Amino acid sequence: MDGTGDAKVKAPQDRLAEWLADDMLAVNRLIRARMASEHAPRIPEVTAHLIEAGGKRLRPLLTLAAARMLGYQGRDHIKLAATVEFIHTATLLHDDVVDESQRRRGRPTANLLWDNKSSVLVGDYLFSRSFQLMVETGNLRVLDILANASATIAEGEVLQLTAARDLRTDERLYLQVVRGKTAALFSAATEVGGVIAGAPPDQVRALFDYGDALGIAFQIVDDVLDYGGAASVIGKNPGDDFRERKVTLPVIRAVAAASPQERAFWERVIEAGDQREGDLAQAMAILQGHGAIAAAHAVAADWAGQAKAALCNLPASDLRDTLSELADFVVTRAS
Amino acid sequence: MDGTGDAKVKAPQDRLAEWLADDMLAVNRLIRARMASEHAPRIPEVTAHLIEAGGKRLRPLLTLAAARMLGYQGRDHIKLAATVEFIHTATLLHDDVVDESQRRRGRPTANLLWDNKSSVLVGDYLFSRSFQLMVETGNLRVLDILANASATIAEGEVLQLTAARDLRTDERLYLQVVRGKTAALFSAATEVGGVIAGAPPDQVRALFDYGDALGIAFQIVDDVLDYGGAASVIGKNPGDDFRERKVTLPVIRAVAAASPQERAFWERVIEAGDQREGDLAQAMAILQGHGAIAAAHAVAADWAGQAKAALCNLPASDLRDTLSELADFVVTRAS
Repeated sequence: MDGTGDAKVKAPQDRLAEWLADDMLAVNRLIRARMASEHAPRIPEVTAHLIEAGGKRLRPLLTLAAARMLGYQGRDHIKLAATVEFIHTATLLHDDVVDESQRRRGRPTANLLWDNKSSVLVGDYLFSRSFQLMVETGNLRVLDILANASATIAEGEVLQLTAARDLRTDERLYLQVVRGKTAALFSAATEVGGVIAGAPPDQVRALFDYGDALGIAFQIVDDVLDYGGAASVIGKNPGDDFRERKVTLPVIRAVAAASPQERAFWERVIEAGDQREGDLAQAMAILQGHGAIAAAHAVAADWAGQAKAALCNLPASDLRDTLSELADFVVTRAS
Repeated sequence: MDGTGDAKVKAPQDRLAEWLADDMLAVNRLIRARMASEHAPRIPEVTAHLIEAGGKRLRPLLTLAAARMLGYQGRDHIKLAATVEFIHTATLLHDDVVDESQRRRGRPTANLLWDNKSSVLVGDYLFSRSFQLMVETGNLRVLDILANASATIAEGEVLQLTAARDLRTDERLYLQVVRGKTAALFSAATEVGGVIAGAPPDQVRALFDYGDALGIAFQIVDDVLDYGGAASVIGKNPGDDFRERKVTLPVIRAVAAASPQERAFWERVIEAGDQREGDLAQAMAILQGHGAIAAAHAVAADWAGQAKAALCNLPASDLRDTLSELADFVVTRAS
C-alpha cells in the first residue's frame, strides 16, 4: 500500500526510469562506451560534463518505453535510445555556442569551460557517433526517420535564428521552430521505438503523434518557465530567451495585445536589442497583464491533451498509462 | 591532334570533370535541390556562398570516377557524390568557425559574412542532408563507411585542436590528424564508389587505399603551400596555419632540427602564441634553412606513389590512368 502511495507521488518519468531501469543501465553503459575516443581525450571530457550532469534522459526513455510497450524483445532499442540521447547532446552543445549560453543543467556550459571550438567539434563527433549507432541496427526505416528528424532539427534551429529579434514572428512560425528544435526528436524517439518493435502502421503513427504533441507541449512550457522559474529550479537562467531576443509564444500573445507604449517597449528590447536594468521584470509584468503566460500554458495543455488522445490507438498497458501521465506532468511541472 | 594536345596540358581533375560531365551536371543539380530549405532561406544563402564559389569538386569526382571505372550503370553514385560534397561543405563551415578564418576559396568566409551561428547551424543542416541522401541509396555498407568516416573526421578535428600549439606533436599524431581532417573523406569517397558498383573486396580495398594515400598527399601539400603560396593563388591566406599555431609537417621537421635559438623562436610563436611582425617570414626562412619544405614535399610525393601503386589492383582503363596522374598532380600543384 505504501509502495503504491510512493509511486503515485513520483513524477511519471521517474516511474518510467524505474520500470525501464535495466534497459537504461544498458543505455548509459553504451553511451559511456561510445562517447570515448582513443585519440582525443577532449571528447569524453566535454561530453561527460554534459551527459553526467544528470539530464532527465527523457528522450531515450521514450524510445525504450515505445519499444517495450509494443512487446519488443530484441536489443536494438538500446542502440536507438543511445542514438537519440547523442543527437540531443550534440544539439545542446551547438545550441550553447549559438545562444552564447553560460549555464545548462545548473552548471557552466561547455563553451564557457572549454571553448566554442570544442563545443562545435565534439557536437559533430557525437552526431557522427549517433549515426554509427543507428546504422548498426541495419534498419533502413529507422535510418530514414532519424535522418529526416536531424534535418528538421537543423532547419528549425536556423529558422529560430532568423525569426529571433523579429516581432512579426507569428504562432505558425513559432510552431515550426518548436517542432524543429524539440518535437522532431521526441517524435522520432517514439516512432523508432515502434518501428523496431515491428508495430503496424497505425500504431507507429500514434507513437509519432504522441511524441510530436508531447514535444510541442514540453517546449511551450519551457518557454513559459523562462519567464517564471528561478535559476536554482530550472537549471538555466530565467530570462535567457528575453536576453537572446527570442520571440516565444508568451511574447507573441503579449505583442498581439500590446498598447502603443507596450509595442514600443517590445520593439526596443526585442528588435533593437536595447535592454536595460528592470526590463525583464517589466516584460514579465506586461505578459502577466495580458494573461499571456496563462494563455501560452493553455496552448501547452491542449497539446498535452492531443498527446494523450494519440495514445488511445495503442494497446492498453501500464506503460501507456504512464506515458499519458507524463503528458500531464510536462504541462504542470515547475522546472 | 590539337584536342589531344590540349587534353594533355589540362589538369587531371579537369579531364575527370570533362569525362564525367553528365554525371557532374546531375550532382550539381542534386546539390542545388537539396541545399534548398522551404522554411529557412538563410540556409541556401550561406551554402550557395560556399558551394557556388567554385571549389574543385574533387571529392564527388572521385566517387563518380570510382563507380564508373568499375562499370556501375545505376544512378546512386550521383547521390553518393552529392553526399560527399555536402559532408565536405559542412566541415568547411565548421572549420572556419573553429579556425576563425576570414577567407576561403578567395572570398570572405561565411562566418565573417553572416555569423558563427549561421555557419554552425547550416553546417549541421548540410550534414543532415548528406545523411538523408545516403540513406536513400538503401545500401547499408555505404552507410557504415560514411558513418565511420564522419566519426573519423570529427575525431581528427578535435585532435587537431588539442595538438595545435604543442611542439611535442610528432609525425604519427600529425598523420592521424591529416587522416581525420582530409584523408577519411577521400577514402570514403572512392570506397563507396566501388561498393555501389558491386566491386569485389580487393578492388574496394584498393579504392580505399588510393583515396587514403591521395588525401594524405593532398593535405601535406596544402600544409606546405601554407608556407609558400600567395593569397591570390591558393585562395586562402598563406601563413594561416602559422597564425593558428598549427604544428604541421614542415614545422615538425624544422623543430626536430632546431638550434636552441630556433627552438626558442618556435616556443614563442607556436606555444606561447606571441607572434610579431616579420615572424612568418622568419619561420619560412628557418623552414627553408633546414630543407623542411622540401622534406615535407618528399613525404607527400611518397604518399602519391602509394596512391598510384594501389591503382594497380584495379582494371586498366583511361579513368584509372587519369586517377594515377591526379596523384602526381596533387603533389606538383602550385595551388
